[in-house]
Amino acid sequence: MINAFEVPGDEAERFIAAWEKTRDYLATQSGYVDTALHQAVTPGADFQFVNVARWRTAQDFQTAIQSTGFRESAAGMAGYRPHPALYQVVRT
Amino acid sequence: MINAFEVPGDEAERFIAAWEKTRDYLATQSGYVDTALHQAVTPGADFQFVNVARWRTAQDFQTAIQSTGFRESAAGMAGYRPHPALYQVVRT
Repeated sequence: MINAFEVPGDEAERFIAAWEKTRDYLATQSGYVDTALHQAVTPGADFQFVNVARWRTAQDFQTAIQSTGFRESAAGMAGYRPHPALYQVVRT
Repeated sequence: MINAFEVPGDEAERFIAAWEKTRDYLATQSGYVDTALHQAVTPGADFQFVNVARWRTAQDFQTAIQSTGFRESAAGMAGYRPHPALYQVVRT
């Protein structure tokens, strides 16, 4: 799962706190493997944050984000436009 | 370096061929570590492709993409809107 977030430059700390709350919930869910939150070091990047998470299966991820616990834990992310999708590596 | 590309659904093969040509060049440059091209499995994803590459330093990457060889090898990517930036992992 890769999710690119549109976050104003001066809201990094607030975004990270909201992201951590969501991560703490998702990390308890079946099929969660790991995650890495990337912050841009390039000035003016279109996406200040990109999250790259691994899940055992697509179904595990879908089940996790359809839960009430997810919606509650992710409430603080509402102000940041996300661009999420599930991906597979096709070339290296 | 994370780069999210806007690619129409029916141009996947053409995009991958162009990406491979660019990768083959960049893989010869100083500081290149590795790369992974991710293709969306979610229908309607904003970005059909996201490339996640690792470089030894930001300067190595900047030097590589300012070369004539890069511009030549990346000519086939011109039609696909990119959203590139350099990132560091801030949370896991």
